[in-house]
Formats: sequence, C-alpha cells, structure tokens
Amino acid sequence: GEEGNGHVSSDVSVLAGFETKSVLRDSAREKNIFIHGMLAGQEAVVILEKTPIREDTVSALLEGSRLTLEMRNDIYSTYRAQPPVQLNELKATLVCPATEKHVKKYQRRGTFLLWETGEDYRTVTLPFLLSQSFSLQWVYNILDKKAEADRIVFEDPDPQVGFVLLPDFKWDQKQLDDLYLIAIVHKRDIKSLRDLRGEHLRLLENIRSKGEDAVRQRYDIAPNRLRVFLHYQPSYYHLHVHLTALSYEAPGSTVERAHLLSDVIQNLQADPDYYRDRTLAFPAHADDGLLEKFKEAGRL
Amino acid sequence: GEEGNGHVSSDVSVLAGFETKSVLRDSAREKNIFIHGMLAGQEAVVILEKTPIREDTVSALLEGSRLTLEMRNDIYSTYRAQPPVQLNELKATLVCPATEKHVKKYQRRGTFLLWETGEDYRTVTLPFLLSQSFSLQWVYNILDKKAEADRIVFEDPDPQVGFVLLPDFKWDQKQLDDLYLIAIVHKRDIKSLRDLRGEHLRLLENIRSKGEDAVRQRYDIAPNRLRVFLHYQPSYYHLHVHLTALSYEAPGSTVERAHLLSDVIQNLQADPDYYRDRTLAFPAHADDGLLEKFKEAGRL
Repeated sequence: GEEGNGHVSSDVSVLAGFETKSVLRDSAREKNIFIHGMLAGQEAVVILEKTPIREDTVSALLEGSRLTLEMRNDIYSTYRAQPPVQLNELKATLVCPATEKHVKKYQRRGTFLLWETGEDYRTVTLPFLLSQSFSLQWVYNILDKKAEADRIVFEDPDPQVGFVLLPDFKWDQKQLDDLYLIAIVHKRDIKSLRDLRGEHLRLLENIRSKGEDAVRQRYDIAPNRLRVFLHYQPSYYHLHVHLTALSYEAPGSTVERAHLLSDVIQNLQADPDYYRDRTLAFPAHADDGLLEKFKEAGRL
Repeated sequence: GEEGNGHVSSDVSVLAGFETKSVLRDSAREKNIFIHGMLAGQEAVVILEKTPIREDTVSALLEGSRLTLEMRNDIYSTYRAQPPVQLNELKATLVCPATEKHVKKYQRRGTFLLWETGEDYRTVTLPFLLSQSFSLQWVYNILDKKAEADRIVFEDPDPQVGFVLLPDFKWDQKQLDDLYLIAIVHKRDIKSLRDLRGEHLRLLENIRSKGEDAVRQRYDIAPNRLRVFLHYQPSYYHLHVHLTALSYEAPGSTVERAHLLSDVIQNLQADPDYYRDRTLAFPAHADDGLLEKFKEAGRL
C-alpha cells in the first residue's frame, strides 16, 4: 500500500505471515533479536532492533509517556513507560530468501581465536574461500548504481583508487552517535586485508583522505572523531572499509577483528608485503567451515 | 493515581514537568540516554532506556506492527516498524534530588583519536606523565602482598620475567562469560607498551604462556577463548596485560585502544625498536590533560 504522504511506501502486513522456526540470537544489551523462519513459503531471517533514543525527542517522550512506578528507594525510582507510538519505532530487517549461510551467519556460536600465518592463508583459507559461493551481486549492484544509488554519500569513480561511500545497513541515519558508513572500492580483485600490498597504498590513502573529507562535509564530524578500520576476516570478500563514530562501540570494532586503516597504511609503508607474510589473529565461529578447515589442517 | 488492576501504582505525569538542562550521555548501541535537569525545583537525573526484545513477544510484534519500507536491495530489505504500545515499553529511572556527583558520574566526555609519533611521546606525552603524580602504591601493595593477596590467581615471582595474575575490579567472578584478569609485571621500570623493546620478549612470552596456562587450570578456558591485550594509553603506567573472555566485548577492547599481546610479540620479533618509533593511535578525553598538551604542541 501507499503512505498518505506519498513519498514512502508502506506495507503494513509484510511480516504478519512470518512463521518463526527459531531464535538465532538476541542481545539484551543491544535490544535486538534475530529470528529464522518462513515467509510466503521461503526461508527468511528477520532482525528486529529497538532504535536509539534521539535527543530531540526526549521532551516529547517525557511529556507524552504513560508511566507506571516499579520501584522506589531513597532518591532512586524506576518506572515502566509507554511512549507515543511514533516516538518509539523498531527497525526491522528482512533477508528473504535466506540461505543456510545467512542463518549460520546470524546464529550465536562459540568463538575461537585463530592465528593464520601467510602459509595458512594460501593452503587453508584461500582454497576454502574459493570453494564457497557467497554472492557479491549486492556489492556490484551498489557499484553499478543498480541499487541504493540514492543512499550514496560520496563517490570517487576512479577504477583504480575510487570507492563508493554509503551508510551501513545497521545505521538508521537518525542520529550521528552511531554513525556507520562503508567505503566499497571499485576494484574487484582485492578480497581482503590479506591481499593488500604496497601498490595499494594510493587506494588506501585515497579512501582515508576523501572518506574523511566526505564525512566532515556531510556530517560535520572531524577525522579524529572517527574509527576507520577493516575487518579480518571480513563478512564478504570484496575490499571495504568501515567508518564509525569513535564514541560508538560498534560490534566488530574489538581488537581481535578490527584493523585501523592508519595502522594498515603504516604497515604497508614499512613493508609492502606485510600482509602477505604476517600472522593475523581472527575470531572464528564454531560452525564456520573455516574453523573446521583449520582443525583438519592441524592448526587448532 | 492508581492503576485499574490494583497491584501497581501509576503516575502518568511524574516526568512531564521535567526541564532538561543537558544530555549527559547516550548510547546508540544500548539505546539509552542520561539527562540532567530540574524536577519540581530539584536537581534530577532521568535515565531512559529501551527494553530488550522478549522472545515470547516476537509473534505478537510481527503480527501487530505497522511497517514502512525504507530500503530494498536484492534479498535485503529494511523497514521502520510501529509495534503495539504495550509490547514496546521504555524503562525510566529517576534520581531526585541528584547531587553533582551523580551528574559527573553519568557525564560522557568527548573522545578524540590522537596519533602519537615516537617523537610526540618523548616531547609531549612523557614530560606530561612525569609531571603527574599518579600514585602506583596500590600496584606495589599487590606485588608486595600487602593488599589483595587472597585474590591472586597465579604468580611467577621472578623479578625479570615474573608477574602477578588476579581478577580485575570490574569482574565480580560470578560467571565466566565476562572473565577479566590482569597480569601485573614485577619489573617496575616499564611504563607502558611504548617502553617495550626486543629485550622484553622473554617477559611477554612468559606472561602469554604462563598466564594462559593458569587460566586453563583455574577456569578451564583454552587460550583461543581469550583476548589477551595491552592498553595504550594505559590507565596506570606500570606494565600490565589484560586477559578477558573472547566472547565478552569488554570496555576498552576496541581497536583504537587495545593491542593483542600476540601482535606485540610479533612486532618486537620483527623490529626490537618497533614501539620506540611507531606512530600509535589512542583515544584521549576532552578533560584529559594529555589532550591539552597535544593541542598546545600543535599536534591536534
């Protein structure tokens, strides 16, 4: 259906027919839940997450909420509050049709730290990646402007050092506290941090300077208020860089998975083959095929 | 007023008269906000927080929510959802009257990323540290068994490569999910990561192997379930190493502050003077003296 105001479409009931099979994961700290189920005969994953409390809605929240006292002790009291519905939305993300890989990705699992030597990468990790067929179509859609073109914050179209900068799915863009952007490079032959060499310094420095400029211009946030980093392992093997608000402890920004872009640049300046030879630690999940492969290779 | 059901009391409007002075802190990840203001002529702090999404309400949430499509790309789509009001409450906490200490406790400080060259350390950071008189007496009390002796998990008494391993203050030791230990070295002349040289490799490797063994013996946790890291800047300038459960995203484990011990060892193996010369990024707070010093030196 169409919304009354005409510029957004509304579909009141798209998730009403969702049949839950299992809860994959939930976080009381982050107020989200990941659910696996069926939608219109197809496998699907639905992610529900409460939205951040916006500073500019606080007065309306306090004035418009219906309160119920739960506890009072000395100067402290707690209440349950029912705020006006339009001030208290959820974010819903639908993956449909979802593959077994999506289900696995979201499932809560035991996590183990692996130490991957350059040799491990060539003999264990790379063959495993090549045997997988996680589609990068959605990345190419973005680079080709076939999807999300209206979300692009900045683009440098150069095929060698260019990139597209856009908001990450996880960010609802309602407040800057949890700013989360992704820079996706136009080059299609760099799988990850592991593939980076001295020759890619121009690309990385370009992302750093133009990405930071774009964030300053669009959001008025200085480079020293940003965390700019790469993941290893990444969740998809087309080179991309994460830019988040420094004060936001984004999932995946912990030291065992994140690598500051400024450190990556410094490492490649010191040694163009740093990431070919270096032992890289990364967290692997119990039901990842990769952890299995490391086990089989006697590297666990 | 009284609720109709009789066993909870309701006060629809207790916060309606709250006058906001400032937002002390908010977390987009945790969906909360801390507000300082006045209530009925008294200083007050109000904390609003979204509630976790309960598994047993998911069906009702999916059936009862009004959805608006925000983005669609390939198999992914995102929506804004307005759920039934009784399924989407907030938690409100009121501190009233609040003292200045409450206000300070909840206040967030602006955080800026600094990039400290080896030269910056010698000309800005080190003189600043030496001008401060942070007492290390509490550290020496632990090393000398004058305090917390009963909390020690493991000790290697060797004066050159030895250390004391004990639970961090932040860990209540009630569950292993958030295990947090600290290894404090017996040597008293290493301020931080910045002072580490090739000659300290034996010390670091000793902490790694004996610390991991002790955690395995005492808590039955394997080394690949641990995050073992140093802070830069540390919160006190006597060398210590953090050991946390890998699955616990402990505060201070983000990439801009944490350095994996295994990476530190690898870096010193490659270059004994790595931490003398390397540019190290670290987060500094607006009301830290150190940030001021970097400003004065024109390094911000």
